[in-house]
Amino acid sequence: MRATVKDVARLAGVSPGTVSNTLSGARNVDAETRRRVEAAVAQLGYVPNLAARRFRTGVSNTIAVMTSMSPAVSAGSSRLGFLMEVAASAAVSALEHNATLVLVPPVADPAAALRNVAMDGAILIEPSEDDPFLELLLRRGVPVVIIGDPPRDGLAWIDMHYRATANMLVGHLLEQGARCVPLMIGASARRSYAEAEAAYRGLLQAEGLEAHVIRIPEALGEDAAHQAMLGLLKDLPALDGVFVPVDAFATGVMRALRDAGRAVPDDVKVATRYDGLRAREERPAITASNLHLDRIAALAVDRLVQLVAGTAAPLRIDGPLPTLVPRGSTLSSTLRS
Amino acid sequence: MRATVKDVARLAGVSPGTVSNTLSGARNVDAETRRRVEAAVAQLGYVPNLAARRFRTGVSNTIAVMTSMSPAVSAGSSRLGFLMEVAASAAVSALEHNATLVLVPPVADPAAALRNVAMDGAILIEPSEDDPFLELLLRRGVPVVIIGDPPRDGLAWIDMHYRATANMLVGHLLEQGARCVPLMIGASARRSYAEAEAAYRGLLQAEGLEAHVIRIPEALGEDAAHQAMLGLLKDLPALDGVFVPVDAFATGVMRALRDAGRAVPDDVKVATRYDGLRAREERPAITASNLHLDRIAALAVDRLVQLVAGTAAPLRIDGPLPTLVPRGSTLSSTLRS
Repeated sequence: MRATVKDVARLAGVSPGTVSNTLSGARNVDAETRRRVEAAVAQLGYVPNLAARRFRTGVSNTIAVMTSMSPAVSAGSSRLGFLMEVAASAAVSALEHNATLVLVPPVADPAAALRNVAMDGAILIEPSEDDPFLELLLRRGVPVVIIGDPPRDGLAWIDMHYRATANMLVGHLLEQGARCVPLMIGASARRSYAEAEAAYRGLLQAEGLEAHVIRIPEALGEDAAHQAMLGLLKDLPALDGVFVPVDAFATGVMRALRDAGRAVPDDVKVATRYDGLRAREERPAITASNLHLDRIAALAVDRLVQLVAGTAAPLRIDGPLPTLVPRGSTLSSTLRS
Repeated sequence: MRATVKDVARLAGVSPGTVSNTLSGARNVDAETRRRVEAAVAQLGYVPNLAARRFRTGVSNTIAVMTSMSPAVSAGSSRLGFLMEVAASAAVSALEHNATLVLVPPVADPAAALRNVAMDGAILIEPSEDDPFLELLLRRGVPVVIIGDPPRDGLAWIDMHYRATANMLVGHLLEQGARCVPLMIGASARRSYAEAEAAYRGLLQAEGLEAHVIRIPEALGEDAAHQAMLGLLKDLPALDGVFVPVDAFATGVMRALRDAGRAVPDDVKVATRYDGLRAREERPAITASNLHLDRIAALAVDRLVQLVAGTAAPLRIDGPLPTLVPRGSTLSSTLRS
């Protein structure tokens, strides 16, 4: 026979309500009572009947994390990217709130991905302007926190400082001496691209330089960026730098430069946004920005817990500012060591 | 008013039971019926009442993934490791079975981590001999699939070929000319260490070489490995190689070699097991093995779904054999290019 909450209460010498309060993480339980309840739980091997509690309360104590970014860009063969870095930190933060983290993988059919997921709230990473996950979540009435600029008003979000990030990276390319620097971004409508483009155009205009913006469908991934870069090298013989915020595209760009016999960084300097495995593994490694995703994830979980509890808070939460991670793709070898 | 299963059935022209079968992924629904039900679900914005269904059926359609390995070893500051690589692949495989994946982070209190997690089954990565997660799961009666050798009989497991992996890596160090090659492993009781040690002792004995086994508490992480390696370099002046299966320890070993002014690979050759971020990021990068974790994770999810459904299958499932990833930490520069 499985132990019940009454068995735990009897052994601990408290009421069943106190047992429930203790296990649900309520704050008004004193340390000594908590210790007695936890000892009784351990001794009896008590496990709460979660399905019954969830049915009764409507609370599943679950947070889901997802991104609509194409798997061609968000995952890659090693599957170690932005999404997983956020998910790992969010899982730890969720646990601190007595919640569990469900990982919704990036797949072609968001409706199928969400259909069997019970959740109290969702963290949506960098949604597109007509994000399918966002539509589904809002239709279900699930509280949502967006990581990055939200595609519409009225949503809670963590500001990752898109424009400051792009300013920092494009500014760095110009400081390192690049004068003909195209921007290569994804073709979908995303606030991160729009902000990167605005920052890029502003900086180039201020320097009297010509802007060149290339858009690549995300689903085509690295290979499309490789092809596009080969074309750019033909069209812009003076090209001596490129800003490629999407790291999967940056890998394709580096391959194109090798194929075309152009040296990085001496002939062409390359910078990307996310300092993930792709940026670190290239030879030379690619200059990027530390986005402090662990702190971003923790802020998103904290905000989501507030939302689910109905606690008032401003919609925009200020995230940490990114920091530059300069590497061999922009620093000439004399500067590096 | 939220749409109900009856509304969907009426619009699709089928029975409510057929709607349930279609949404639960049952195989006996023909394609045309499935299409009509899915169109009606989309049109009405229908979301199943998951809490009610779970309470009724006792099935949560959830798979949990966890490891008891210390965060000092399993995560690290970037949190991109073994656990996350398995979790990412398992999330995709789970979705193919209409299940969702819960990520249980490695934390100090496994009981607290599991208390609020509803699950039909669990994947446990490389448990120790007295694994706290395993005890908790078995006590709850949760079906479990172990990745790696199981610590006791009667459990379903995916064979990662511990001994073959260690044989391959130690054999490679010896082939590259190393003759005084200690083994540095974790101090906890794990089958992966025991098998690595058996392979190591066997190979060294066959070559008439002396074995030196060093055990480091996992919770002390990289720094303890750094200290231990400095000690080894004093105690074994002839040391010219080291096998460090735990990648966090390998990072500490590389640092100690730099501090001691010993060149890698010319003075000392280093090999580790898991080809993760730590192995790839070192300078020189560390020789490791591709464990094919994506395929291992998919096998574990498939096996777990069978277990939950009560389908008979052998306890041991054969995983893919690891492949050597030779790198600068064992290949002298003349061989590399």
